[in-house]
Amino acid sequence: MAVNLTPPDPLSLRAVTGVELGVSAAGIRYSGRKDLLLMRLGEGSRVAGVFTRNRFCAAPVLVAREHLAMGQRIHALVVNTGNANAGTGSDGIARARATCDAVARALGCDARQVLPFSTGVIMEPLPIERIVAGIPACVADLDAGNWFGAAEAIMTTDTVPKACATRLQIDGTETTITGIAKGAGMIRPDMATMLGFIATDANVSGSALDTLVQEVADASFNRITVDGDTSTNDAFMLMATGTTSNAPIEIDTPQYTQLRDAVVEVAQTLAQAIVRDGEGATKFITVRVEGGAGEDECRKVAYAIAHSPLVKTAFFASDPNLGRLLAAIGNSGIGDLEVGGVSVYLDEVLVASKGGRDPGYRDEDGQRVMRQSEITVRAVLGRGPAHATIWTCDLSHEYVTINAEYRT
Amino acid sequence: MAVNLTPPDPLSLRAVTGVELGVSAAGIRYSGRKDLLLMRLGEGSRVAGVFTRNRFCAAPVLVAREHLAMGQRIHALVVNTGNANAGTGSDGIARARATCDAVARALGCDARQVLPFSTGVIMEPLPIERIVAGIPACVADLDAGNWFGAAEAIMTTDTVPKACATRLQIDGTETTITGIAKGAGMIRPDMATMLGFIATDANVSGSALDTLVQEVADASFNRITVDGDTSTNDAFMLMATGTTSNAPIEIDTPQYTQLRDAVVEVAQTLAQAIVRDGEGATKFITVRVEGGAGEDECRKVAYAIAHSPLVKTAFFASDPNLGRLLAAIGNSGIGDLEVGGVSVYLDEVLVASKGGRDPGYRDEDGQRVMRQSEITVRAVLGRGPAHATIWTCDLSHEYVTINAEYRT
Repeated sequence: MAVNLTPPDPLSLRAVTGVELGVSAAGIRYSGRKDLLLMRLGEGSRVAGVFTRNRFCAAPVLVAREHLAMGQRIHALVVNTGNANAGTGSDGIARARATCDAVARALGCDARQVLPFSTGVIMEPLPIERIVAGIPACVADLDAGNWFGAAEAIMTTDTVPKACATRLQIDGTETTITGIAKGAGMIRPDMATMLGFIATDANVSGSALDTLVQEVADASFNRITVDGDTSTNDAFMLMATGTTSNAPIEIDTPQYTQLRDAVVEVAQTLAQAIVRDGEGATKFITVRVEGGAGEDECRKVAYAIAHSPLVKTAFFASDPNLGRLLAAIGNSGIGDLEVGGVSVYLDEVLVASKGGRDPGYRDEDGQRVMRQSEITVRAVLGRGPAHATIWTCDLSHEYVTINAEYRT
Repeated sequence: MAVNLTPPDPLSLRAVTGVELGVSAAGIRYSGRKDLLLMRLGEGSRVAGVFTRNRFCAAPVLVAREHLAMGQRIHALVVNTGNANAGTGSDGIARARATCDAVARALGCDARQVLPFSTGVIMEPLPIERIVAGIPACVADLDAGNWFGAAEAIMTTDTVPKACATRLQIDGTETTITGIAKGAGMIRPDMATMLGFIATDANVSGSALDTLVQEVADASFNRITVDGDTSTNDAFMLMATGTTSNAPIEIDTPQYTQLRDAVVEVAQTLAQAIVRDGEGATKFITVRVEGGAGEDECRKVAYAIAHSPLVKTAFFASDPNLGRLLAAIGNSGIGDLEVGGVSVYLDEVLVASKGGRDPGYRDEDGQRVMRQSEITVRAVLGRGPAHATIWTCDLSHEYVTINAEYRT
């Protein structure tokens, strides 16, 4: 069902010197399915991350955050699917720690140098014995050319593996950026059941990497929504192995901007892939809000549109029931919005102006755009210079089917 | 599909002296379907109302608000289905005024003594000529015993007419309260595509009626949600004809409390009927949040649960995928929520405690409750004495079908 999304060409996923990846089928929830991923990072690597803001964040999130905060070099990341180890209390934390212990033993490092990640069903005990048993196979599989397999290993309800790479020259040094992500439902700003891992061989200072990961998240994973639910397990990790010859990149330099733009490009591709593979998605929708007094209110309006089940079902039906767009804008919580100043476009078609249907709007023009698999909704508020763009999908029968049958 | 909801017994819907109702099939959207309702109020009647907070509120909402604010006696209310006259700009306002003009001519009053209401598809021009043509049939049909027909005439995607009546003694005077409502989708707090009209023959002062309508809305129509969408047209009107012999009821009196409790009871029955008839609903769910620091945060948590598509599809599937409840609570926006203090119950079954699955919880107990058609989710936050209750329904295939095909 994914909207204009095909698996990446494995050959395009360039290795990042200093990152090895190994996968195995540990039988965590299903047998014979790749469900465990180990990433080993070389000496000199730095890692920064952003995590879910859900107060019920999962045990691995708590442990990964704690380990990152210790400031030690991170030696490995371990990711399991099939079980989120969320809503599992102190027992869940013990199991996340046990996962790190097992990786540390296998790789000969300290458990606090390992970051754990989990995704899958929540409120069920993590089958730690299966994870421990699966780690040796991951170690044996470690290879710098394993990005495609890694993308497959972290899939849950995803129908397509998500990975992307790019290259650029920074001060004459070839720099590689390669990333993978998973996520298809429970997607929403502020990190939603998604995991994203992007690595670069660039040499980036610790403080620059901390800023970079936040800037990249805000421009990519924090701009997508499938169903407005934010997961307990979201994490986006940025790894810089520093194997290139350049001096450490600092913030507010041309090198930082160059690197940031390239990482944002990879992250946006991955984030959009999550929406394209949104549970039951049949349409990929860009919502752009312009003319706001501030970026915050533009985002509010954009999410009000993107989260409205009535708007989402109208897209599914290819039905230009465009009053639903106006109703969603009116519901966005901007108390002093003057609806007479609002215009709405579907692609280039002016649908509404001055608070109502535009006199020149013809239903067949709206219908033509609605039939497309990729649609841009543009709302112009007439209040100022700010703008914001987010990406979402429609709400279909298939979404209900997937989420009603997830555990069965 | 309505959940444990049957049409009211027409004989139970007692007339309210001073209110006459007349309906007709004006062919506004479909032919042969009752789609126009006229309510005529006797001398001495007072009317108060609350309206949608959607900034794109419909033309009839603007006109009804304006007419109410003039403080003149309201002579009649007119309601059409099939077209919401929303997102229609100044032309829509002219058509709403034309509706009032036509009623005023037919009844011999001033147009400003008429309140117009519309519900149905948005952003299409109101077929005013059909409404004008249908009014004489409504006038000819005016009758105090017509509440059931009125409930039928205001239905849109409703599958069951919604009406309810009660009686009480106030200072030895028999007082009647009868009401009707419509709404099945696009339902959310702060008034959602719902219309509600409740009349009483009690004599209520103007200021007491203004307070009463707000208190009643807050305890009923503002506590329901089907899909989180707030309509452009919602209105709840409370009419007191004052034909009973009692002196005007003022606020802060025992008589006020008596009357309020009875009106709340009628309004809650109507509000819950809207949820029971929620588009595609197969479950009626009460969400009660206790132990909050304030009622506001209890409502936030309750709505986070009620609006989560993942929670709603789990209810549809009768699947005790209860981690989704925890995730929704964690997403409710209470930044300092200590999840270790949170407990969650499904009816009497303790599901989660101390931030995770309760040690005594067995899946078959959750499964048993989830199979019921009526379920209470109770979240105890452990932060204070406040509580709040709202009502919602599940998210099913049928919801998608109804909303994807609404205009076709």
